[in-house]
Amino acid sequence: MSEGYRYLDNGAATRLDERVLEAMTPFLFETYTVATSQFSYSLGIAAREALERARSDIAASLGAASEEIIFTSGSTESSNMAIKGVPHALANKGKHIVTTRLEDFPVLNSVKALERDGYTVTWLDTDSDGRLDPAALEGAIRPDTVLVSIQAANQEIGTLQDLAALAAICKARGVVLHSDATHTYPRLPLDVSSLSVDLLTLSTELVHGPKGVGALYLRKGTPLHKWMDGGFQEFNLRAGSENIAGAVGMARAVELVTPEETAGIQAMRDAALEQLLAIPQSILNGHATWRTPQNVNVSFRFVEGEAITLHMDLRGYALSTGSACFSRALEASHVILGIGGDHERAHGSVRLTFGRYNTLDDATGAANALAEVIERLRAISPLGKD
Amino acid sequence: MSEGYRYLDNGAATRLDERVLEAMTPFLFETYTVATSQFSYSLGIAAREALERARSDIAASLGAASEEIIFTSGSTESSNMAIKGVPHALANKGKHIVTTRLEDFPVLNSVKALERDGYTVTWLDTDSDGRLDPAALEGAIRPDTVLVSIQAANQEIGTLQDLAALAAICKARGVVLHSDATHTYPRLPLDVSSLSVDLLTLSTELVHGPKGVGALYLRKGTPLHKWMDGGFQEFNLRAGSENIAGAVGMARAVELVTPEETAGIQAMRDAALEQLLAIPQSILNGHATWRTPQNVNVSFRFVEGEAITLHMDLRGYALSTGSACFSRALEASHVILGIGGDHERAHGSVRLTFGRYNTLDDATGAANALAEVIERLRAISPLGKD
Repeated sequence: MSEGYRYLDNGAATRLDERVLEAMTPFLFETYTVATSQFSYSLGIAAREALERARSDIAASLGAASEEIIFTSGSTESSNMAIKGVPHALANKGKHIVTTRLEDFPVLNSVKALERDGYTVTWLDTDSDGRLDPAALEGAIRPDTVLVSIQAANQEIGTLQDLAALAAICKARGVVLHSDATHTYPRLPLDVSSLSVDLLTLSTELVHGPKGVGALYLRKGTPLHKWMDGGFQEFNLRAGSENIAGAVGMARAVELVTPEETAGIQAMRDAALEQLLAIPQSILNGHATWRTPQNVNVSFRFVEGEAITLHMDLRGYALSTGSACFSRALEASHVILGIGGDHERAHGSVRLTFGRYNTLDDATGAANALAEVIERLRAISPLGKD
Repeated sequence: MSEGYRYLDNGAATRLDERVLEAMTPFLFETYTVATSQFSYSLGIAAREALERARSDIAASLGAASEEIIFTSGSTESSNMAIKGVPHALANKGKHIVTTRLEDFPVLNSVKALERDGYTVTWLDTDSDGRLDPAALEGAIRPDTVLVSIQAANQEIGTLQDLAALAAICKARGVVLHSDATHTYPRLPLDVSSLSVDLLTLSTELVHGPKGVGALYLRKGTPLHKWMDGGFQEFNLRAGSENIAGAVGMARAVELVTPEETAGIQAMRDAALEQLLAIPQSILNGHATWRTPQNVNVSFRFVEGEAITLHMDLRGYALSTGSACFSRALEASHVILGIGGDHERAHGSVRLTFGRYNTLDDATGAANALAEVIERLRAISPLGKD
């Protein structure tokens, strides 16, 4: 990292923690063999035991049983596996899926793939803060509904859904519920012994865990068609040689997240938000309180997100924008548009994400720099002059 | 690793090379951000450049163009993506697939999944060394054949196929050819500018590269339906945040494999094979010369693979067997059975795999220990006494 350069985009949260690599190291260089059965050699058994310990630690972190945790290559795969695996297993029940317009791409585009394959999809709208009305979900469920997928928190604007209320509806109606918890787990409490969600997309990429590994929580008895074919690993639900070091690193990353740390990150978020919302013609994207502790997202009128990120880069801050070119998506943020924003609001949006390696000074420093950059850009902008 | 303990199962080849981790480290702790577009901040651009350098290095190693390399989470995913993605894209042409009975599980079980979904599959037999007769492939191709998948080398017995002859047939017949090259790349030369294969499953997990990362070679113009849905990464062919460190590590692992090293590994193989085939009632599994440099696989009559591995473990050697309990598969090695072996031959098979961290002493030491173990086991065995 350049001296003094501050990551405040999602990258802020993807820096690996040295303690995670330390936990992984024995499985890279010593017990690096494949996990084997008990009819085998001792180090294969040791590898298997480490894998099962990681699995049980992750299960315990969310009140699940060990056999309900399936390791994958990350959030994208976990969501593909859930969205494509449940409807396939419930083909006899129907071909109707319920989800929201604000889902992250793995869910959004997996559902669209099923839609192209003949499934009917109810795309639920949210309110202008990105929250889903449980009554809307209740009204959308049909006798042929095979899957509901609703994110725990939004990837861009940090809005938390009332997952408990939504899960209660699905349970009462006997419908399988999947939730992408990539942006809440393990920072926010999640307990599947009281929350009746059936599948969860999990990873620790955004809390300084390893890349290339994730998990799917699958409640016992939930029907799931195997998506990744091959060997018999992961209870014969997900093929591929086990990434022992990755699983161990993921478990270690979970362990390292503390409520105190999360409170500190939330203080950064609040400090930045307070300053940014004091800038004229700014608007908060997402909910003021139903919001992940690490997320700031504000739109500024009469400025372009790309210009902001380039100027902020020169001042030593990496942050992101919902503008199309930045994201390499084909269009402006579907999330900002989905909560009723227009293209200008999407193009003028700025997202900051705080992590373990940020400080309160990063938050206030970035907000100060943003205020200056926006003032300058507006001064030279042809927009908003009349 | 226990002092003096020698890995000779596939694990021998999965130990990470410290130099690979060293190449990955800057992307774990410094330039750890996501790869971004040029309308972004400098470190996101640096991450993207590192990713593209890794891609172009891997492409160069097999005579491909950069844009023909798609990063995945490993061999299993690459094969799923190929086997499920090509037929889906060629739905208008037909629903016939050709493969062999000896494929590794990711290909084997992906093809079986398609078979359950209504595809017709021609399962080609090989000869008793595991080699496929090109004339058999020629005879199997039909007007509605959408995909041929034939491994470059076998995962258990190391038999190399005559990929050049097979590829020429597919090219002449206008049929897409996929090959799982997990057990040859990058140890054996592979040049797609002369070899007309269309898709290749690639990883460096077996040459001391990182786990959780692999690649699919996809010849320009080959139709492929996107399998992993989500973001627009990897030319919009494979979603998921890029694993920059993983890609960089994979490229470094390729670079570290030299013909000299491979020749040394082949010498270990030959020394072990010579000793093991001198043991009475032994039989070579696989071809004597069309064989990967790292693979030894021999069956011994009147002994059980599990007993051999347990005794070898006590003597400080990890190796594997094609027996059912060891492999956690539901049945004895489909490869040994596929080349005409019976269950006794499968259960009495022993595989040794040599890698960078083995020596010629490991090979001869393991062979000596095996000779003793087999003699003892046979002395106490009720089998073969009449």
